[in-house]
Amino acid sequence: MIGKRIAEAIERYKEEFAPTSRDLPDSFQIAHYIDHTILKPDATFRDIEVICQEARAFDFKAVCVNSCWIPDVSRLLDGTTVKKAVVTGFPLGACSTEVKVFETRWSLDFGAEEFDMVMNIGALKGQDYDLVMKDIAEVVKSARGNAVKVILETALLSTEEKVAACVIAEVAGAVFVKTSTGFAGAGATIADVQLMRFVTGSHVKIKASGGIRDKESAVSMIKAGADRIGTSSGIGIVGAE
Amino acid sequence: MIGKRIAEAIERYKEEFAPTSRDLPDSFQIAHYIDHTILKPDATFRDIEVICQEARAFDFKAVCVNSCWIPDVSRLLDGTTVKKAVVTGFPLGACSTEVKVFETRWSLDFGAEEFDMVMNIGALKGQDYDLVMKDIAEVVKSARGNAVKVILETALLSTEEKVAACVIAEVAGAVFVKTSTGFAGAGATIADVQLMRFVTGSHVKIKASGGIRDKESAVSMIKAGADRIGTSSGIGIVGAE
Repeated sequence: MIGKRIAEAIERYKEEFAPTSRDLPDSFQIAHYIDHTILKPDATFRDIEVICQEARAFDFKAVCVNSCWIPDVSRLLDGTTVKKAVVTGFPLGACSTEVKVFETRWSLDFGAEEFDMVMNIGALKGQDYDLVMKDIAEVVKSARGNAVKVILETALLSTEEKVAACVIAEVAGAVFVKTSTGFAGAGATIADVQLMRFVTGSHVKIKASGGIRDKESAVSMIKAGADRIGTSSGIGIVGAE
Repeated sequence: MIGKRIAEAIERYKEEFAPTSRDLPDSFQIAHYIDHTILKPDATFRDIEVICQEARAFDFKAVCVNSCWIPDVSRLLDGTTVKKAVVTGFPLGACSTEVKVFETRWSLDFGAEEFDMVMNIGALKGQDYDLVMKDIAEVVKSARGNAVKVILETALLSTEEKVAACVIAEVAGAVFVKTSTGFAGAGATIADVQLMRFVTGSHVKIKASGGIRDKESAVSMIKAGADRIGTSSGIGIVGAE
């Protein structure tokens, strides 16, 4: 069933894909697209405080952190419109589904509102599509209506695998597909964002992440179809306005 | 309390440290030191099968995988002497303690016998030693007598932080301290293994990992004090014998 849908999507991509670009809205404010992100393992509590202060000051869309910091982030962003985003099964996506579900629930209990999970990349490569889908669907279920962003780690995938991942994520109930963790060497590309936009149409949002360090890159990603930008260079990007 | 002990260990290191080297035992067989490791996110089930076959054929000490593969590894290594090792909170160490504990218990339930956890590096850098210790102690407790290896990620630490991490891991009940995840740029060094041996004395074993790709490097690590070698190049290392 899902295999047939994937095969059709790959066929359609090969026959019909053409790169697209869109105009920015009149009221465009880049800060509202940015997930202000700190995921490095040596980030300290002081770093988390700074990120949260910056997110409030610049009105970023979200702050995105590892799960051990979510209780602090929830407290520091209390009463603001900045979303509290957390990663799950990050950055390898190779922990068990049960671990991803536990991390999602735990983070939800401590105030997380968005969940950036890494898909099971090895299962995708082994074409175990049912496992990949169940892995995502269980996290979606445990997020109880909150947005789940499924990280594909495009740098490790073939074109066919990228298409398959988008199809599975959509069927499994993801609100976003996301390009990269930032830990796999290469990050987001314009071509990948365009592919993801083509495959998911208007059904799924797109988050571009990994290696986006200046305003020009961020704007290019948005024009290519990205709805959200994950970056640890948010201050530089808005400062260039 | 732990702060005083760390301060004393740093003082002792600065005053007394000298690099040491030891001879290999007469019956030395390098395979018995090797954790045959596959942790890349795009590893497939077929890769896991191969690793397990190789571990049986070459009599490696252990196979080390991400937790989603532990049920398969337990089945594939059933009836052998090869230990089933799993990583926990890997590779960032920045998920919550509860998530590390859950992953440990889950993996234990599916047959894992050794647990390579990443310490909370950001908490160490913020000198929140109580959090670092509790994080390790809870995983040790949930491993129910099975060996826990605490990964320090030495590439990200100062000398003082490396000493502190060794002291905390020992007090928290770790059986091993381990140098690296292999995902932080740099891996094990002779100097770090010697430091870890000096600080922990004979109380804690040492696992050197990250960037060890040939027999010469592996033997140097063992002479410097390593009791275990984590590597994805195990076949090349034993093949060179």
